[in-house]
Amino acid sequence: MKSQQDRLREAMKRLALTRDDFAARLGVTRRALDTWLLPDGSKEHRAMPAMAAKVLAELPGARALPAGLRERITPRGKPHLLSVEQFDRAAVEDLLAVAESMEPIARRAKVTRVLEGAVLANLFFEPSTRTRMSFATAFCRLGGSVCDTTGFTFSSMAKGESIEDTSRVIAGYADAIVVRHPDQGSVARFAKGVHVPVINGGDGVGEHPTQALLDLYTIRREFARLGKKVDGAHIAMVGDLKHGRTVHSLIRLLSLFKGLTFTLLAPPSLEMPGDLVAHAEAAGHKVRRAASLKDGLKKVDVLYATRIQKERMSGEALETYPLDFRIDKKRVDALCQKDTIVMHPLPRDGTPGSNDLATDLDNDPRLAIFRQTDAGIPVRMAVFAVLLGVENLVAGSLRDAPWISPPRIGSGDAPFHRLT
Amino acid sequence: MKSQQDRLREAMKRLALTRDDFAARLGVTRRALDTWLLPDGSKEHRAMPAMAAKVLAELPGARALPAGLRERITPRGKPHLLSVEQFDRAAVEDLLAVAESMEPIARRAKVTRVLEGAVLANLFFEPSTRTRMSFATAFCRLGGSVCDTTGFTFSSMAKGESIEDTSRVIAGYADAIVVRHPDQGSVARFAKGVHVPVINGGDGVGEHPTQALLDLYTIRREFARLGKKVDGAHIAMVGDLKHGRTVHSLIRLLSLFKGLTFTLLAPPSLEMPGDLVAHAEAAGHKVRRAASLKDGLKKVDVLYATRIQKERMSGEALETYPLDFRIDKKRVDALCQKDTIVMHPLPRDGTPGSNDLATDLDNDPRLAIFRQTDAGIPVRMAVFAVLLGVENLVAGSLRDAPWISPPRIGSGDAPFHRLT
Amino acid sequence: MKSQQDRLREAMKRLALTRDDFAARLGVTRRALDTWLLPDGSKEHRAMPAMAAKVLAELPGARALPAGLRERITPRGKPHLLSVEQFDRAAVEDLLAVAESMEPIARRAKVTRVLEGAVLANLFFEPSTRTRMSFATAFCRLGGSVCDTTGFTFSSMAKGESIEDTSRVIAGYADAIVVRHPDQGSVARFAKGVHVPVINGGDGVGEHPTQALLDLYTIRREFARLGKKVDGAHIAMVGDLKHGRTVHSLIRLLSLFKGLTFTLLAPPSLEMPGDLVAHAEAAGHKVRRAASLKDGLKKVDVLYATRIQKERMSGEALETYPLDFRIDKKRVDALCQKDTIVMHPLPRDGTPGSNDLATDLDNDPRLAIFRQTDAGIPVRMAVFAVLLGVENLVAGSLRDAPWISPPRIGSGDAPFHRLT
Repeated sequence: MKSQQDRLREAMKRLALTRDDFAARLGVTRRALDTWLLPDGSKEHRAMPAMAAKVLAELPGARALPAGLRERITPRGKPHLLSVEQFDRAAVEDLLAVAESMEPIARRAKVTRVLEGAVLANLFFEPSTRTRMSFATAFCRLGGSVCDTTGFTFSSMAKGESIEDTSRVIAGYADAIVVRHPDQGSVARFAKGVHVPVINGGDGVGEHPTQALLDLYTIRREFARLGKKVDGAHIAMVGDLKHGRTVHSLIRLLSLFKGLTFTLLAPPSLEMPGDLVAHAEAAGHKVRRAASLKDGLKKVDVLYATRIQKERMSGEALETYPLDFRIDKKRVDALCQKDTIVMHPLPRDGTPGSNDLATDLDNDPRLAIFRQTDAGIPVRMAVFAVLLGVENLVAGSLRDAPWISPPRIGSGDAPFHRLT
Repeated sequence: MKSQQDRLREAMKRLALTRDDFAARLGVTRRALDTWLLPDGSKEHRAMPAMAAKVLAELPGARALPAGLRERITPRGKPHLLSVEQFDRAAVEDLLAVAESMEPIARRAKVTRVLEGAVLANLFFEPSTRTRMSFATAFCRLGGSVCDTTGFTFSSMAKGESIEDTSRVIAGYADAIVVRHPDQGSVARFAKGVHVPVINGGDGVGEHPTQALLDLYTIRREFARLGKKVDGAHIAMVGDLKHGRTVHSLIRLLSLFKGLTFTLLAPPSLEMPGDLVAHAEAAGHKVRRAASLKDGLKKVDVLYATRIQKERMSGEALETYPLDFRIDKKRVDALCQKDTIVMHPLPRDGTPGSNDLATDLDNDPRLAIFRQTDAGIPVRMAVFAVLLGVENLVAGSLRDAPWISPPRIGSGDAPFHRLT
Repeated sequence: MKSQQDRLREAMKRLALTRDDFAARLGVTRRALDTWLLPDGSKEHRAMPAMAAKVLAELPGARALPAGLRERITPRGKPHLLSVEQFDRAAVEDLLAVAESMEPIARRAKVTRVLEGAVLANLFFEPSTRTRMSFATAFCRLGGSVCDTTGFTFSSMAKGESIEDTSRVIAGYADAIVVRHPDQGSVARFAKGVHVPVINGGDGVGEHPTQALLDLYTIRREFARLGKKVDGAHIAMVGDLKHGRTVHSLIRLLSLFKGLTFTLLAPPSLEMPGDLVAHAEAAGHKVRRAASLKDGLKKVDVLYATRIQKERMSGEALETYPLDFRIDKKRVDALCQKDTIVMHPLPRDGTPGSNDLATDLDNDPRLAIFRQTDAGIPVRMAVFAVLLGVENLVAGSLRDAPWISPPRIGSGDAPFHRLT
């Protein structure tokens, strides 16, 4: 069996982490890591505790980057990412391993230029800032250039052009295309006739596969520091589960794992669609519906909150249902566990009294929402790298970023990406 | 005289094509090309057939890139491209040879960074997606960066700023400026006071020189595979010939060649302006007006269709004229030749019953519209490269693109850029 | 003491200027410079005249780039630029020395890629073209990539998201953030919780620090060629001094120098806020209010004009005040000195009869407005470089720009950036 030192060194190298970053990634001090890396006979040498060894073994990037991932995700020769249904468990784990390998770049410690010369068409047929910028930044951090278009200026389609013509024309310009569109199925229609990678950036109430991937990536990273696994976990989903494409894609993706319990909390007219519930149950998971926060949040590992817009509730439910889905510190303290992770796809409605996630948890380490949004960069980098076939070129192309990287991003979210 | 092998090798090298791509470019199989490249004494050696030799001799890039092109196109010391009138025949052929040299980059096989550090201001004072993205992509593929502005956000001019002030300010930021503006002549006004290259991206019913250049580039490439020449060709232009700046610029550019026949098909109030007709005739070309598709499409080499917007017809014509300018497969089969090329500047109105090019030709090899829009990239790259004086640096700067290039772009447009 | 030749050579090297450019920078002919650079014993050798020696000594970049500038400007560990109040005199002079070192890049003679891999989020919550493009271009010229967002598409905030959430999310994507916002104080609020550099691109009637920095940079460069100093200068500010954040930031910044005289010319209801006047006076400067152009423009070194929008005047003033703040050639000839510099933050209202700077001065060498807008590039490059800690890496990273740089930018502004 490999020595403790070798296993640590290999993981550090594989993840392209400095010793400081790697210590942080394991959730230990730099000093502790140093003692574990000393030769066995050394006076200062210490053996890793069992928990650290477990975290090390569970690191998402623990396997070498697998070959042929593009073909496994996109079997019909069209290199698109339209739905989480394209993934089996091995493929999703491999993709997240690629994302893990992007962390040094996403954390602005390293620079790569593997996609230098490539162009992304970032087409948003409805307004968006965060998702649009997340895709754009991810492509830029791989070295590529981005051409943006937002819905307001999409003039050709206003002149009667078909979505197929638009798609073919744009595919003649770009090496990859991200499309967000208000109509379910329209991104698939956009992708149908072209051989350039098309990525679904959200199509109405349909899918939003990269959001589900970054949600899963976040859960796995948070679990890694807590010594938990996705298999057997308990996930609560709260809010408007009918219209939220985010939770739709996520429940499908989580269903690839084993023995989960899903607790669903939604007002009567905003419940999770039956086919998705059936799909999770058919995959061997337990799906419970809870009537109140008090009832549903006991012993959950993840509380995934979404926003409820009153205007989406149908008449009767609106009148008779006591709408109270606010998640705040008092409730989380009272109802959840000490290591429950609180997530949200953002944006959240931060106005007082909104049926949404409150801001008084912002400095609570259980709140993972900003680590979650940050995860969009490495995950979308992984998607681009895999669809364009360069994921195995990245590690060899890294150089140090010469500018000063921030020690952390936000004030209530310390320390930066290190999941302590 | 040079051997067949030497001529083939030189052309392959000059065009920076792989053997596969070069075979495709000649319209032959790779296997055939291989036999032509074998030594004369070899058992498997074959002589090129006459048609292949002709195509080889006619390849647009057959001459070395000429020096001084920028000065020949922009004689007054202002490096702008405002009108096709800036070209004589030699200059336009030289520019298209530069475009041909950009093909490996446009086809995503090669990467260059000659314009790394340069900035394009892409100013669209009216909405546009395809043209804006085509210019932006072309600049990015040369290694430059792009700053986009669309009409909606052009706030300074709303505050009473003159076009001259705007121009001078932007010229202080950028190395090249593309301007689209709804008013004829305004791009020239924009360009007047500045010494940074300004490219007319369309000024109202005025000019759209890069569109005409890419149209001509397409015609030459299509003709090359068919063994035809532009001199003596028969071009039909159909639709709204009054307001279409595309056909205005194209007829001027084609008039630089010899002995063409133009057949013009337009409703009474939407005819080609008289001065353009006179200009073509003065240059020795035959200009015919046809009353119907049936009448006009016989023996044409190129059918160039444009869209008719009913609201642009004047009252009387609208009432009395049987408006039927739809181009579909049935008509092309019945009226055109087997090697007639069908072109369109796009977007086309794909809704049923529109007076435009129908979609049932999309898988017909005669339909060149997507190869035509693709041609925007190499042609606009050539324009930027020439105006910024780097066209002779590109070949020496090429490296392989590390990402997976698509084998083809669209489903009905196979194989990718190889004009078989 | 160092020889004349050594001092000249060191300055030329430090500023990374060619001999031609350096001659232009000193305001002398290339021939004159050549004679000064010859060995003392040489027959053609000439001693620099006193005026040239003075200009040489006063060159903004005359000191080596200082270390620790980022920490001096942003003492609390948050690397933001929100207000000119962050500067003391030494810091502002050091920053402008960094800007001076960017000139070869801004003038498109040199290329750097120090920020390759870095991403700027360029967030404009109100429309802007010139400032947005100036920031974007500056970041691109350092090698970085830019993600733009204009107010119209900022959709998350419309869904009830707080400015703090938006800020934290964007900071997770980008390495630097520029924010323009219509509300005073909102950029500071945006910056409060994040550790990624946030730069105030203008917050309502609040501040616009980079504009003030480029204004000061321009004054110093103009003064350098005229043999003047900022200390003791006489600056007239004309127009709407109440709402103009530009003049607010500028008077604060100039107050760091010594013994200035400010003459303020504004209609009754549009006067400079009292606290800014008091601040300047407390710093030992003389502040005068003038009632008319005739009265106020005598013996000024700088005439800084701004636009008056009639609708901003309060009722009484509008009725009774003879609004005549037009600055044109006739008035400048009659009232100003031969070396008075005329500045304006732009855009100016160029329509006839506007109460603004007229266009008949456009070819007058005293008009510095276009050199002023050009200065935005090196100054904003300096701000980015300092906040990201790369200012001392730039000089070592320079290579020649391979494309043809324009000999000058505008027709009435010759020669390009050489301040003759």
